[in-house]
Amino acid sequence: MDLDLVRQLAQESDTKIVLFVMDGLGGLPHPETGRTELEAAWTPRLDNIARDSSCGFTMPVGYGITPGSGPGHLALFGYDPLVYTIGRGVLEATGIDFDLQPSDVAARGNFCTIDAAGKITDRRAGRIATEQSAQLCARLAKIELPGVQTFVEPVREHRFVLVLRGEGLSDQVKDTDPEKLGAAPLSAEPSVETGAATAVLVNRWLEQAREMLAGEEQGNMVLLRGFARRPSWPSMPETFNLRAAAIAHYPMYRGLAKLVGMEALTVGPKLEDSIATLRENWNRFDYFFVHYKYTDTAGEDGDYDRKMETLREVDDGIEGLTDLNPDVLMITGDHSTPATMAGHSWHPVPFMLRSRWGRSDECESFNEVQLLKGSLGTFPAKEAMPLAMAHAGRFRKYGA
Amino acid sequence: MDLDLVRQLAQESDTKIVLFVMDGLGGLPHPETGRTELEAAWTPRLDNIARDSSCGFTMPVGYGITPGSGPGHLALFGYDPLVYTIGRGVLEATGIDFDLQPSDVAARGNFCTIDAAGKITDRRAGRIATEQSAQLCARLAKIELPGVQTFVEPVREHRFVLVLRGEGLSDQVKDTDPEKLGAAPLSAEPSVETGAATAVLVNRWLEQAREMLAGEEQGNMVLLRGFARRPSWPSMPETFNLRAAAIAHYPMYRGLAKLVGMEALTVGPKLEDSIATLRENWNRFDYFFVHYKYTDTAGEDGDYDRKMETLREVDDGIEGLTDLNPDVLMITGDHSTPATMAGHSWHPVPFMLRSRWGRSDECESFNEVQLLKGSLGTFPAKEAMPLAMAHAGRFRKYGA
Repeated sequence: MDLDLVRQLAQESDTKIVLFVMDGLGGLPHPETGRTELEAAWTPRLDNIARDSSCGFTMPVGYGITPGSGPGHLALFGYDPLVYTIGRGVLEATGIDFDLQPSDVAARGNFCTIDAAGKITDRRAGRIATEQSAQLCARLAKIELPGVQTFVEPVREHRFVLVLRGEGLSDQVKDTDPEKLGAAPLSAEPSVETGAATAVLVNRWLEQAREMLAGEEQGNMVLLRGFARRPSWPSMPETFNLRAAAIAHYPMYRGLAKLVGMEALTVGPKLEDSIATLRENWNRFDYFFVHYKYTDTAGEDGDYDRKMETLREVDDGIEGLTDLNPDVLMITGDHSTPATMAGHSWHPVPFMLRSRWGRSDECESFNEVQLLKGSLGTFPAKEAMPLAMAHAGRFRKYGA
Repeated sequence: MDLDLVRQLAQESDTKIVLFVMDGLGGLPHPETGRTELEAAWTPRLDNIARDSSCGFTMPVGYGITPGSGPGHLALFGYDPLVYTIGRGVLEATGIDFDLQPSDVAARGNFCTIDAAGKITDRRAGRIATEQSAQLCARLAKIELPGVQTFVEPVREHRFVLVLRGEGLSDQVKDTDPEKLGAAPLSAEPSVETGAATAVLVNRWLEQAREMLAGEEQGNMVLLRGFARRPSWPSMPETFNLRAAAIAHYPMYRGLAKLVGMEALTVGPKLEDSIATLRENWNRFDYFFVHYKYTDTAGEDGDYDRKMETLREVDDGIEGLTDLNPDVLMITGDHSTPATMAGHSWHPVPFMLRSRWGRSDECESFNEVQLLKGSLGTFPAKEAMPLAMAHAGRFRKYGA
């Protein structure tokens, strides 16, 4: 649904909506047993919820599209992931919970290695250790530019974030990464005229970086990509007319929630931490996004059995959430991460929505086979939030 | 999916995709038995494939829209048939495998009959025989225009194609067919100013045609419609980043495939010819469109039993294709042609996609009733190609 229409329809209510995201939830059949992780896992409580829910599958972005975490979550927050896109630099800053200001310009950086002639011999500097990278970042953070504050924050291995803060900066600057070996790092060039002044500053920064790193065997130069500013999107709390909280431990998901204007609560890494935080803040918000990471981690590792275990872990703990009896409870994922593929995939994602006003179907349990009987079918993930709003009595009638 | 997004996501791979189109595949229940052609036909091999596939239905163009061959196929090639439309003249030229150049202007022609006063008495000249029409075309082909080459190619019965080839031609010329009896054929008029010079040429051609045909009892004049140029669409091989071949015997389908940039291989009329050509060219391409015409012909003839037989014929021969073990095999139609309707219809079209990475469902056989259990539901035909790309590992992740 278009956010302008959401804004027209949204009305206040004292109802509560919970979106529980099991990251990378959907799976594929195990080649030996023919059963998906959800089919095989022991999840009696989730199955019980499915019997009381309207069930189906979400399509995160579109047919055949494998989403990254950004698009997958934005869709669940009600934002069309083909319209609301995030520049690489901003996503990287978001991923380390860096508090980007609206006028900041962020770029993703790589330490790389160049030879005596200045040609790139390794675009990733041998994937130097995060600790070593952090030391190089601390060195580069001392570079000074006229009228502009700089931040150089380590991410992981050879990756870092460069943030420029000041007046009149532009993100219209091209990548300095030639994306091939044997070529020299490029100078920063404006992609349009308005980026010219910022490109000059970036080049001054690059010159100093080159001097400071000259003695390193690995990581004696840097490459910058994806110059971007924080997008100025409609705020979710304003658009949907509700107080929205994110309960997510990992910086990437906290960052995504903050980009749409949610308040990111402080929370520990475990499911029980999330549920405790949810219970403590129950009266302060109308909408809660609760993130569970480990289904995805197990899927990414190609570990079918561990993914099953994480599903059971959620099942074991879910009553701490369902006890609160939210008016609308959605349980789903941001994308599928089948253990057999050891990575994100395009497959539709199991979804259930429990509410007093839901239309029942005949799903007996929460898995990819039973949900085919669901009343919701396969629908765009960006429509989950409008569905929740309706079931929560938070949408007024359209037309008369 | 938007083709710009396809271009962003497409990546190389050594996987193979086969699209096997049974023209006019979908059917309707026989009024006596209540079973569709696919339900009644003996198709154990197709049923086996269905058990291993992700199943569903394609919607060729939209709810309630009965597609012609053009839109039905373009959708399966990944082109939105409501965006990528083909002018009538070009479609007619395509249908006879005429090799249109980008600057050519083509129009569909009808021989018609006019009376002594110049008024139309028969818009189709009594549907004169194709042979007679061909003779008249040969006569008209001798007309000369200054600076412009002309081609007059017979199609069938009273229909022919006129092609103008030269510099600076425009397709902004209105139809000369008044579409009613008792009126005189119209002069060619430009639809916008840029068509003026071409309209003058067309009128000179029409004058000479009138003189040359004056002695004929039937077909003593012509009507021209649908002036059009070959569309300059994104090339399928470039957009999807693969080598694409069409294995189709009938000119219309070869022509459609060539319009999107596929290489049309030479092939005989039978299924075994198609499969032999597929096998011979297996290593030369990444994507194969294989066309089977006779399901549609039987449907168009309202011949339920013969449509059943054609389905059985496909089933008998399909192993020559499945033996090759393509990474992605899609079996579907371009539209439905129920024998009970003796024509194309708007009904969704049976579809199955077999791949190592497909999500299974509980379809026991390949027919309109079983496929309702499919995991793909009813989806736009233009999304079949993105789905195939994903299952073939040919799409990279969207966003991070």
